[in-house]
Amino acid sequence: MAFDPRVRLATSDDAAEIARLMHRFDTEYYSDIDEPEKLERRYREQLEAGDVTVILADEQLGFAQLRFRKQVYSDAPAAYVEELYVVPDRRGEGLGRALMEAAVETARADGADVIDLGTATDDTAARGLYESLGFTNREGGPDGPSMLYYERDL
Amino acid sequence: MAFDPRVRLATSDDAAEIARLMHRFDTEYYSDIDEPEKLERRYREQLEAGDVTVILADEQLGFAQLRFRKQVYSDAPAAYVEELYVVPDRRGEGLGRALMEAAVETARADGADVIDLGTATDDTAARGLYESLGFTNREGGPDGPSMLYYERDL
Repeated sequence: MAFDPRVRLATSDDAAEIARLMHRFDTEYYSDIDEPEKLERRYREQLEAGDVTVILADEQLGFAQLRFRKQVYSDAPAAYVEELYVVPDRRGEGLGRALMEAAVETARADGADVIDLGTATDDTAARGLYESLGFTNREGGPDGPSMLYYERDL
Repeated sequence: MAFDPRVRLATSDDAAEIARLMHRFDTEYYSDIDEPEKLERRYREQLEAGDVTVILADEQLGFAQLRFRKQVYSDAPAAYVEELYVVPDRRGEGLGRALMEAAVETARADGADVIDLGTATDDTAARGLYESLGFTNREGGPDGPSMLYYERDL
């Protein structure tokens, strides 16, 4: 795998740095987020166990986060892009694309045969990036209906 | 947990029945699907390992399928509704609702603090069901932007 030189696969040693970025991201978009220490513990445990895969940009500029799940449609796993974040003052330099390209390469190298994600309708920069990388929001083909993401707190 | 009496939690002994339903579902919506024997093997293995959770309607009338994933936002897992299917000639009898209610109860009983899913814009029956059960397609509140689901084959 040849990643953009600004990004690399994270290890559990990167848990504190990823937690700080995640906290910064959630503080930007949401009000309710656990303190960085809790996030760091979860990242360390899950990175060590292989429960999460993180692509990290140098200089704490951003990250992409993947989860894998088994499928019944195929013997291959499916990959889910759970997070994509670039710090606000460094957007527009192609870091998001570099992170996503590395995420796609990593998913494929780990055997996944499909990769998916959810995003907001008004996040046109992210949507343009995903679409330029071959992601589609259309079910069954280019003329298919748009696919929606729903959630509910329990 | 008190499920609608027409639905129950499946075990690995139900793998062949779920595989037949899944095959019927995919034949209805897609052209490219593995034979039922392969689906059955995957269901048996994944049900035995606890990698998938299936709610099954009596008389092979339908099923709902859940996956759990770890989160960094919380110590609780997240649940994902991967499939919801009711055979065509038995729709409109509330089986989909009974399956989804049991799926939500199961996700909560297994400790999840959020449940999510993807669906097509034009599947208004499913969307109405999800919304009546408290699922939202809006990010951050009722006036937030719609959330989209994207995917890419690898």
